[in-house]
Amino acid sequence: MKKIILITGGARSGKSSYALERCEALAGTKCFVATCPVIDPEMDERIDAHKREREGRAWDSAEEETDLCGLLARLKTYDTVLIDCLTLWVNNLMFSAERENRIFGETEMREEAARLSEAIEAFPGTVCLVTNEVGLGIVPDNSLARKYRDLVGRCNTILAKRADEVILVSCGIPLTLKETISF
Amino acid sequence: MKKIILITGGARSGKSSYALERCEALAGTKCFVATCPVIDPEMDERIDAHKREREGRAWDSAEEETDLCGLLARLKTYDTVLIDCLTLWVNNLMFSAERENRIFGETEMREEAARLSEAIEAFPGTVCLVTNEVGLGIVPDNSLARKYRDLVGRCNTILAKRADEVILVSCGIPLTLKETISF
Amino acid sequence: MKKIILITGGARSGKSSYALERCEALAGTKCFVATCPVIDPEMDERIDAHKREREGRAWDSAEEETDLCGLLARLKTYDTVLIDCLTLWVNNLMFSAERENRIFGETEMREEAARLSEAIEAFPGTVCLVTNEVGLGIVPDNSLARKYRDLVGRCNTILAKRADEVILVSCGIPLTLKETISF
Repeated sequence: MKKIILITGGARSGKSSYALERCEALAGTKCFVATCPVIDPEMDERIDAHKREREGRAWDSAEEETDLCGLLARLKTYDTVLIDCLTLWVNNLMFSAERENRIFGETEMREEAARLSEAIEAFPGTVCLVTNEVGLGIVPDNSLARKYRDLVGRCNTILAKRADEVILVSCGIPLTLKETISF
Repeated sequence: MKKIILITGGARSGKSSYALERCEALAGTKCFVATCPVIDPEMDERIDAHKREREGRAWDSAEEETDLCGLLARLKTYDTVLIDCLTLWVNNLMFSAERENRIFGETEMREEAARLSEAIEAFPGTVCLVTNEVGLGIVPDNSLARKYRDLVGRCNTILAKRADEVILVSCGIPLTLKETISF
Repeated sequence: MKKIILITGGARSGKSSYALERCEALAGTKCFVATCPVIDPEMDERIDAHKREREGRAWDSAEEETDLCGLLARLKTYDTVLIDCLTLWVNNLMFSAERENRIFGETEMREEAARLSEAIEAFPGTVCLVTNEVGLGIVPDNSLARKYRDLVGRCNTILAKRADEVILVSCGIPLTLKETISF
């Protein structure tokens, strides 16, 4: 059964490892989507290890900096897609808008998050999203960091609304914030 | 029945929206207290929308930067008061002390938080407090930010002690940290 | 029965007070280990107060900046050892390596955390560790802070794996992330 899972946590909290474990426990084909061209080497290793395993459990991988909706449409034959991570996606959207002299504020973030949310619902398989909590420290000095943290908070909230499960990882331990029981 | 509810979370975690929802679910008259002169425009809109609703569910609003105890005494005819947010109140207390060349450290914070705690207990209706977690990032470079984060942590701990409910909001999802069952 | 307890939380979240309370509830001799030469004056006071109490409940105290494994071996007659805190220990390891022109990165952190983990398991009594969550704010500007936050995250995850209990303290309220039931 299709599920939407959102996994959040701090830096090096073990959220990505937990996300991989969760997805590995599922049957079927899997694709790991990195929102940056450079995948964390440790993740890379783990994914490579699984690539060498038997067909049914293998991970493919893809990279996409901004157009996650388009990518999901192309990946729809996969049973599970793991996107790591939303925070970097928000970062990429901000910088891509800046390069093209477009405004990217609260309104645009809401629109992008809503579009992604719809693409995730439309996707036939399970989608597991990894994100970061970035708003639990002191207010940042520079306005770009403040804006980024506001946009990430908004993005997380919008995507968590449609998720079946939301999990906060701290010290490598998953804490379920939300779990929708389906019959 | 009167309740004291403390809602904490990060920036744009959905804590204020959750606080409004919780209070809106309660019967009776309500007052929204902003600890800054400028209310978040989105909150403003939501409150305005409710002001236009039927009498019994309407929100009034008030602004108070430092003297929350005095304000609570004046608001005692309300069934519910929502104070958003304590972190800004701590900030205002620090700057007001600085302007008047008074010391505002750990001791003064404890006293202010204890005074507010008593005023909240004395208040006949429900008080819902919104605050922020600001101590879960890296130690800030500048000493004012370090002091602020220590004072906020202390303030939150003191007010949480007397609260019937303490709720941490992450990705828009409330997680109950404490719930006192009353009969 | 021996237990390993890891207590995490933000600055001034009440995690140290909670750790002291938890340990005080246990029978037997206790030692408080500060990872810095200067103990928080408030903790100092609390420990002093207990030192004046009856023998069986008294706290001794020790200070150790880097070699916690060696210290644990020397403290093995104690029923309970409380180490406050791991984050400062990571900080000390980083600076000690820098002073001696040694590399201290991810690999070295893993090794140190694994060694400590084993020393804690070998310790006959209960070990209570206090640490901090430092990865839930915005990505720090300077690379040393980024590295520190990554190492702390890794250290916490490694030590949490072997802990019987992992507790997140927010607003002075403990939230159990993990609890191993033993019979």
